[in-house]
Amino acid sequence: MPDGAHIQLAQSSCFPLQKSQRMAGFDLQNYLNTKTEAVNGALGKFLPSEKTKPSTIHKAMRYSLFAGGKRMRPALCLAAAEACGGTQDEAMPMACAVECIHTYSLIHDDLPSMDNDDYRRGKLTNHKVFGDGIAVLAGDALLTQAFEILTHAPGTSRYSHRDLVLELAKSSGSLQLIAGQVADLEGEGRKTSAAQLKYIHERKTSALLCCSARLGGMGANCTSNQLKALTDFGYHVGLAFQIIDDILDVTQTSEQLGKTAGKDTASKKATYPSIVGMNRSRKIAEKLTSQAFASLKPFKSKGDALEALATYLLNRNK
Amino acid sequence: MPDGAHIQLAQSSCFPLQKSQRMAGFDLQNYLNTKTEAVNGALGKFLPSEKTKPSTIHKAMRYSLFAGGKRMRPALCLAAAEACGGTQDEAMPMACAVECIHTYSLIHDDLPSMDNDDYRRGKLTNHKVFGDGIAVLAGDALLTQAFEILTHAPGTSRYSHRDLVLELAKSSGSLQLIAGQVADLEGEGRKTSAAQLKYIHERKTSALLCCSARLGGMGANCTSNQLKALTDFGYHVGLAFQIIDDILDVTQTSEQLGKTAGKDTASKKATYPSIVGMNRSRKIAEKLTSQAFASLKPFKSKGDALEALATYLLNRNK
Repeated sequence: MPDGAHIQLAQSSCFPLQKSQRMAGFDLQNYLNTKTEAVNGALGKFLPSEKTKPSTIHKAMRYSLFAGGKRMRPALCLAAAEACGGTQDEAMPMACAVECIHTYSLIHDDLPSMDNDDYRRGKLTNHKVFGDGIAVLAGDALLTQAFEILTHAPGTSRYSHRDLVLELAKSSGSLQLIAGQVADLEGEGRKTSAAQLKYIHERKTSALLCCSARLGGMGANCTSNQLKALTDFGYHVGLAFQIIDDILDVTQTSEQLGKTAGKDTASKKATYPSIVGMNRSRKIAEKLTSQAFASLKPFKSKGDALEALATYLLNRNK
Repeated sequence: MPDGAHIQLAQSSCFPLQKSQRMAGFDLQNYLNTKTEAVNGALGKFLPSEKTKPSTIHKAMRYSLFAGGKRMRPALCLAAAEACGGTQDEAMPMACAVECIHTYSLIHDDLPSMDNDDYRRGKLTNHKVFGDGIAVLAGDALLTQAFEILTHAPGTSRYSHRDLVLELAKSSGSLQLIAGQVADLEGEGRKTSAAQLKYIHERKTSALLCCSARLGGMGANCTSNQLKALTDFGYHVGLAFQIIDDILDVTQTSEQLGKTAGKDTASKKATYPSIVGMNRSRKIAEKLTSQAFASLKPFKSKGDALEALATYLLNRNK
């Protein structure tokens, strides 16, 4: 769960302060706490208990799913649903499904055959605790579980279960989320252009954030204009999110991040700071966040939570 | 594609000969050739081409998907649809989805952190060609693709996309297919009872075969009685299939199997022959096949292809 000290909202940067007057009174800390609690409760119910046979796989799935993730994707999903006049309950299966996809992708990315990370969110990675074989299977199981959870969504008049499944499968498949990880793996140690890096970031991060917002909207039976607005919002927030990740990898310590800092530099991975410099990276992230704000116009005050989330993601320090 | 020499149907065992008079004239070789060609064509269209960026992942996905699999699950799926009066086209997305799940599970099972196999179907395993990292991602991508392919199914009046997704997710999730692999991994080198071995086989093999038959029926808008019959059929054929696999691991050479023979003995894995002996294992497989035959009664002659498939699976030598 996010620590209050890390939520700086409009205070830490003059940019979001100027852009975000309308949500100055929005209590994001409280919003995130409430959403995290609700999402954790729902995930706990959707997943088999640790005692369910074979207990190893359910322990491994739950270990990573409840390892202190910030639940940003579920929060975006629920906030998107609310921006479209929907309820938290309607969008909860989608929020939980995207978190299962996110967690599976982290477990597999951390494997020795990929990024080879020992720590994630300040805890040992899945394969360090359960072994590589079970970690592969725990990822597989969470990926499969995501689609099962989607079937718990109530259908709406505009969006069927078919639409929801297609949305999640496309965003997390070989042309998006997995494409990003492949390009990332293949880019290590090679000269990468700004365009190639944007390709990776769009897929590795932006695709699932965008999908989270879209699925939230779809759960609330959004109009096509609202879906377009959420798509623009998710895309820009997602890209900004990854650029900030790149910056934090350089500026923060492993303790602050809860995972190995300086990893990108050590693995000669291209990042925004390494290609366009630190200042320019920050400017780009701010511009992207500004573009995300612009897309929220149709939602008026119902978009406050989304705006607060975008601001938080820009200004976070872990 | 299966070699004609390996399809012995009723000739090789007096048991199926007695039980299968009604489909003595059924040309299974021709049936399998036709279905394999159709399934390969459909899979080729559902999957992104090898040239689609990032090409590595699409090459890796297609390498294993087109490595000469016997397409038994798709054939069961299509035959089940036809037994219920449906068409091949209606059930093709389900047939392709189960094959993607099967192929992903083989890629991950072959990884060094699991069964550590170098050969599959006479060819190098995915990770031996593309590396462990890409093999993990190729499996992930095929798993995700399976759910995307399901969305191409035409809905029926009795079964929605929600039903299809739930069926596939449950059969391939942490309580079924993945549970089987976990129990299999954990059982290596330990004393395993016949009951525990049945638990593993039911999940590791029977679950997806049963799902293949059920999804085919659902694609053909089957009645609840037909679905029950297909469930019984798939369950019994699936168990028989795995017992025969256990027997072939002992009796055949690596060249005959196209994968490492004697692997179960070497890894001290419990098998039917190691627990109940070779003769008793064969008898159990025959009894299970007989039970599968019995469940086909409601389909009359429309069940001929399913009966021929069950007979083939019992009598195969690879």
